[in-house]
Amino acid sequence: MIKIAIDAMGGDNAPKEIIKGCIEALENEKCKATLVLVGKEDVIKKELQKYKFDQTRIEIKNANDIITMEDSFSAVRTKKESSMCVGLHLVRDGEVKGIISAGNSGALVAGATSIVGRLKGVKRPVIAPLLPTKKGYSLLVDGGANVDAKAEFLHQFAKIGSVYMEECLKVKNPKVGLVNIGTEVEKGNQLTKEAFKLLSEDNNINFIGNVEAREIPSGDADIIVCDAFVGNVILKFMEGFGNWVFSIVKTEFTRNIKTKIAALLMKKGLTNIKTKFYYNNKGGAPILGIRGLVVKVHGNSKAEEVKGAIFQVEKFIRKDLVKKISAKFEEE
Amino acid sequence: MIKIAIDAMGGDNAPKEIIKGCIEALENEKCKATLVLVGKEDVIKKELQKYKFDQTRIEIKNANDIITMEDSFSAVRTKKESSMCVGLHLVRDGEVKGIISAGNSGALVAGATSIVGRLKGVKRPVIAPLLPTKKGYSLLVDGGANVDAKAEFLHQFAKIGSVYMEECLKVKNPKVGLVNIGTEVEKGNQLTKEAFKLLSEDNNINFIGNVEAREIPSGDADIIVCDAFVGNVILKFMEGFGNWVFSIVKTEFTRNIKTKIAALLMKKGLTNIKTKFYYNNKGGAPILGIRGLVVKVHGNSKAEEVKGAIFQVEKFIRKDLVKKISAKFEEE
Repeated sequence: MIKIAIDAMGGDNAPKEIIKGCIEALENEKCKATLVLVGKEDVIKKELQKYKFDQTRIEIKNANDIITMEDSFSAVRTKKESSMCVGLHLVRDGEVKGIISAGNSGALVAGATSIVGRLKGVKRPVIAPLLPTKKGYSLLVDGGANVDAKAEFLHQFAKIGSVYMEECLKVKNPKVGLVNIGTEVEKGNQLTKEAFKLLSEDNNINFIGNVEAREIPSGDADIIVCDAFVGNVILKFMEGFGNWVFSIVKTEFTRNIKTKIAALLMKKGLTNIKTKFYYNNKGGAPILGIRGLVVKVHGNSKAEEVKGAIFQVEKFIRKDLVKKISAKFEEE
Repeated sequence: MIKIAIDAMGGDNAPKEIIKGCIEALENEKCKATLVLVGKEDVIKKELQKYKFDQTRIEIKNANDIITMEDSFSAVRTKKESSMCVGLHLVRDGEVKGIISAGNSGALVAGATSIVGRLKGVKRPVIAPLLPTKKGYSLLVDGGANVDAKAEFLHQFAKIGSVYMEECLKVKNPKVGLVNIGTEVEKGNQLTKEAFKLLSEDNNINFIGNVEAREIPSGDADIIVCDAFVGNVILKFMEGFGNWVFSIVKTEFTRNIKTKIAALLMKKGLTNIKTKFYYNNKGGAPILGIRGLVVKVHGNSKAEEVKGAIFQVEKFIRKDLVKKISAKFEEE
């Protein structure tokens, strides 16, 4: 039986939407796991009273403190009784196979590293979100863990990402691209020039070379490698720019009676467009390279995203993702 | 009388669209300048035969070689007879006040630095393109010159950008934002942490703090400061992602008879949306911090962009932009 911990107190909509997402996941036959809700017991119990559910599939693990969005990443050292820390300890001690949190990203990465621990041979863990593309999804590594990266970290992210795409998204021989300012070999800053060399020399990954940011949406590279600063810029710019484009489209569609009729005629099309970019229901972003499954969902996640992340973590566990990543580093 | 050199051989559509843009600029009363077309004399003469124009306002400066898009930036050292190098020498020797090129960016930055030369006190030149935002335009510094930047370069870019926005876009006390992975002071990589400190300490610029990539489209910061690697990622991702969004919108609008009617009803709205993002007619991106005006236009520029860049350079010259930037560094 698979057990997954849920940080019931993390994120902007905790505990309400987090717990709602758990209940909705349990109601879906895709989910076979038991969920361990970590947080203030009385708060969780009160929230659970709203729902009918299979009592045998929800457990509560009390944790009196909360790491907030404003806390520094070092809160994982000072707030040991927080829902995040208590949950990460459950992973470390093998009481659950994974944890999902919508809480403070920096703290979650720090806690994943210091409490759960890195896999042998892995120098840095990596946050691995999926980006929507023309062809489906590409994996962005690093989406937020290491802002001052070294070339050898980027090389490891490519290896970890390749395992993920092969095992979890069934992409055969996934193509790895290095985010760079030009496609030519000699292009880039010091970091990407060194990383290019390491990636080229590794015959165990399918390195297709440099990828300009313009080409990321094409989906030609299954795995997009960059440091977390650049990864964060890509993720957040996509969000901000996308929201702006859609707000302008909305303004134009509501301008007058003619455009409102157009909106009605285009209703299905507009939904198609939104679905293409609204990818939160694909779940969260796993922190990979550690000895358990830690998945970060967006701070403002609603039940839908939490549910998606539960399905995702269960899939990762069934695929034995951690063990398969570990195997790649033991070979060395 | 203002003279501006035009690299007639640079870019994907040279010389045809470059020369067409020059003719169109001369036909517009906004333009009072004389244009010096630099390139192969016979090719330029042949192209000019297509048009009627005021012969006194076009000069030809012969240059037998061409720096191609495939050349390395060091081509400015080896191809001294190229249109780009000959044109840059005209700027250096004061025969023209500025030059516009759609050619190889790396070579143009290298040539601007080595042939025209940096202003006293300026450590690195910077490419400064305008980004469309909700409020109009923000200036991105660095859009492509220095991929391995130091904090002191970023500080200088903020100063240079402030002069540009005040003088050329009439923004009073323009707000400077530092691209970062969070808004809090302590966030960032080593480069942005150091740059934050320098920017905070400078009372002569209006530093508003860190700006997440998500907030760039809001236009709250008039000047967006980052290294050229990050700047390149922002510019190119915006281009690629924007093109993808519009291609999806197009697909949905042409799906069936209903959606095609919607497209007709929305015709004006769709043009409004495109205009908002199609900002090439605002001209090119100046390379600032050097002893003359060098403006880079997109490699695939058509006549429209070349014309816009000519208006822009003439404006820069009338505003005495180079001198005003220089003054900021002489004060030190």
